[in-house]
Amino acid sequence: MALVVQKYGGTSVGSIERIEAVAEKITGFRDNGDDIVVVVSAMSGETNRLTALALEMMQQPTPREMDVLLSTGEQVTIALLCMALEKRGYGARSFTGGQVRILTDESHTKARIREIDSTRIRTQLEQGDVVVVAGFQGVDESGNITTLGRGGSDTTAVALAAALQADECQIYTDVKGVYTTDPRVVEDAKLLDSITFEEMLELASLGAKVLQIRAVEFAGKYKVPLRVLSSFEAGSGTLISLEEDTDMEDPAIAGIAFERDEAKLTVSGVPDVPGIAYKVIGPVSDAGIEVDVIVQNAAADGSNDITFTVKRAESDRTKAILDEIAGTLDAREIVLDKKVCKVSLVGVGMRSHAGIASKMFKALADENINIEIITTSEIKISVVIEEKYLELAVRALHSAFDLGDPDYEKDQNPA
Amino acid sequence: MALVVQKYGGTSVGSIERIEAVAEKITGFRDNGDDIVVVVSAMSGETNRLTALALEMMQQPTPREMDVLLSTGEQVTIALLCMALEKRGYGARSFTGGQVRILTDESHTKARIREIDSTRIRTQLEQGDVVVVAGFQGVDESGNITTLGRGGSDTTAVALAAALQADECQIYTDVKGVYTTDPRVVEDAKLLDSITFEEMLELASLGAKVLQIRAVEFAGKYKVPLRVLSSFEAGSGTLISLEEDTDMEDPAIAGIAFERDEAKLTVSGVPDVPGIAYKVIGPVSDAGIEVDVIVQNAAADGSNDITFTVKRAESDRTKAILDEIAGTLDAREIVLDKKVCKVSLVGVGMRSHAGIASKMFKALADENINIEIITTSEIKISVVIEEKYLELAVRALHSAFDLGDPDYEKDQNPA
Repeated sequence: MALVVQKYGGTSVGSIERIEAVAEKITGFRDNGDDIVVVVSAMSGETNRLTALALEMMQQPTPREMDVLLSTGEQVTIALLCMALEKRGYGARSFTGGQVRILTDESHTKARIREIDSTRIRTQLEQGDVVVVAGFQGVDESGNITTLGRGGSDTTAVALAAALQADECQIYTDVKGVYTTDPRVVEDAKLLDSITFEEMLELASLGAKVLQIRAVEFAGKYKVPLRVLSSFEAGSGTLISLEEDTDMEDPAIAGIAFERDEAKLTVSGVPDVPGIAYKVIGPVSDAGIEVDVIVQNAAADGSNDITFTVKRAESDRTKAILDEIAGTLDAREIVLDKKVCKVSLVGVGMRSHAGIASKMFKALADENINIEIITTSEIKISVVIEEKYLELAVRALHSAFDLGDPDYEKDQNPA
Repeated sequence: MALVVQKYGGTSVGSIERIEAVAEKITGFRDNGDDIVVVVSAMSGETNRLTALALEMMQQPTPREMDVLLSTGEQVTIALLCMALEKRGYGARSFTGGQVRILTDESHTKARIREIDSTRIRTQLEQGDVVVVAGFQGVDESGNITTLGRGGSDTTAVALAAALQADECQIYTDVKGVYTTDPRVVEDAKLLDSITFEEMLELASLGAKVLQIRAVEFAGKYKVPLRVLSSFEAGSGTLISLEEDTDMEDPAIAGIAFERDEAKLTVSGVPDVPGIAYKVIGPVSDAGIEVDVIVQNAAADGSNDITFTVKRAESDRTKAILDEIAGTLDAREIVLDKKVCKVSLVGVGMRSHAGIASKMFKALADENINIEIITTSEIKISVVIEEKYLELAVRALHSAFDLGDPDYEKDQNPA
């Protein structure tokens, strides 16, 4: 008997049929004697429909009212899922964020959870009911409805698991778990049994969009065992483990993340004086543009090159901002390269394994891939390269670090 | 400066455009210095959409979860209307039933309002905001979402007006107000400036479906001045007045109501003994069939005829029930007549005016219309007649009691 918090996203509850399938899955856990708290998102498409209504009304919808509007999406799902469970003869009870009482700050449309009162949920669990909670929403001190922003349902699930001291928080999604890299790029990408929180954070932020990064942070902070698994297929998914695997045979690399659609801006020949990086990056981030990789390299002649990457969609705007301040920067040149991408090796093991970086650079050199930028952190090495080499680079690295699934070929050619 | 509660139904808020039109109307009142509390229904079609989802899930949806589901409909509207007001530069704030705190009993899907806490609304009005409240919904003592049943938004508006001691409760609808009879039947039907609560109750229950009967009862009980008017056309509509008009010239008749699609069942030749009416009607109402007119007439031979009407759609089922118990009734005959209708004269003035009934019967006789059943109350006389005579009877009575709009022909043929 365990207490499990499960989260089902919009695709998993996207139709009456799929809600029924989720209910079926839950009854299996109940029959097994587990206590189940379920967190659900709005049915897929619903949040977009509501957002479109709001945008038809006004270009910048009032944030407070936007939350009142969007929170109805999950409210519909909790009611329908409870009906599906009741129909099967299982007690079920729905709660909106306000009813649980998931207390948040007052930042409408991007609120943060402050506190969860788990009394009502516990009472209901003791009565033998499945508890179904609307994800993504809460209330502030004054009782105003707030939302946690897109993807906030993962955060709701983790926060509930922490408040209830659940044995596990299971995030059901449309993939089987976390892979060594995107299986669409590398055929024999391997499903990971487990991964550390740090690795998951790097993989999530780098583009393996399985879990919301805020939810992973939250789970790490409150030591909630988190598992990612498929709504549609059997399997135990990937456990995001609280502790590093101490196995000596532990591979150095957990996976390879990549980011497409990046653009690189180089401001070259600026004077090598304090504050110059701020002068370049400040106006860009003031304009609400997210800057990713930043590198600075002082040249022998005392001048400086500052290079950074942004999303390609924002690159023209970024260039315009830099051009405008070019005079004050005293720069020789400002160059925009729209066709780059980023590839990263992630693994807590690289801390203790020497030679990871050189092995990575050699693998890329063997394929004649030129590296434009290198950045490193404790558990990650990223390179920015020409976009056209993305797949080639990922495959080369996946193979060089021996990440492939040994069962892949067997699975493809069953005897 | 007045405090006005306004209610806009589903058709009035059925699209973004219409919500904008409602916002426009409200700004006019604000510019005039009035304090405005608005109650809205779900956008037209939305409640049906949600109900269909629930019915796809289970044939008899769990009432508690049905309320969680349906209450989202109004929540969408309050958010959108507030946005429309904010866009126009007017402060606005939405409240769900639970947020106001509209406390109801625990009867899910047909809850009754127990108490309204008007503190939050008053605070918001003092800050100069338009307050927008979701109709049709509340919460019970335990914080569960409840709904008042279809049409409950009118009740919400009246209850709020009572709690706030508003100067007027205005129900905006798709008609201009209450007419002497249905203008589709009588061309020169006259819009009434005012009508008493009692008359309105009789007219509403008899088929002039302008206002929910529960809301009218509520308004009468708490002495809330109620006005019915059009969302789409200018005009001051019809005031449902707290006091009878004491004008000596007050006409005896306020209006003519009618009910189509009735069916008449006659159980003839039953013994004239105590309890026989119960024996006939009991099984019918136990089956959930609503019985309208009931008359009983003892014949000279000591036998009895009991006649009653039901909705035509339920007449076959009613007949089957009676046939089944025919043996125990000791009846000579059970006859179903599917083609009848009911026409009613309503007016508090008839209490003090003699001869209303005879004038009514003469007007029908002059048209050779045979009366099958007559029933009377303090302020109403109803006759059941063959359905084919419905329009003819209503027109004859409208003209006999001189209810026509004197300006009608002028309006039709402007100089």
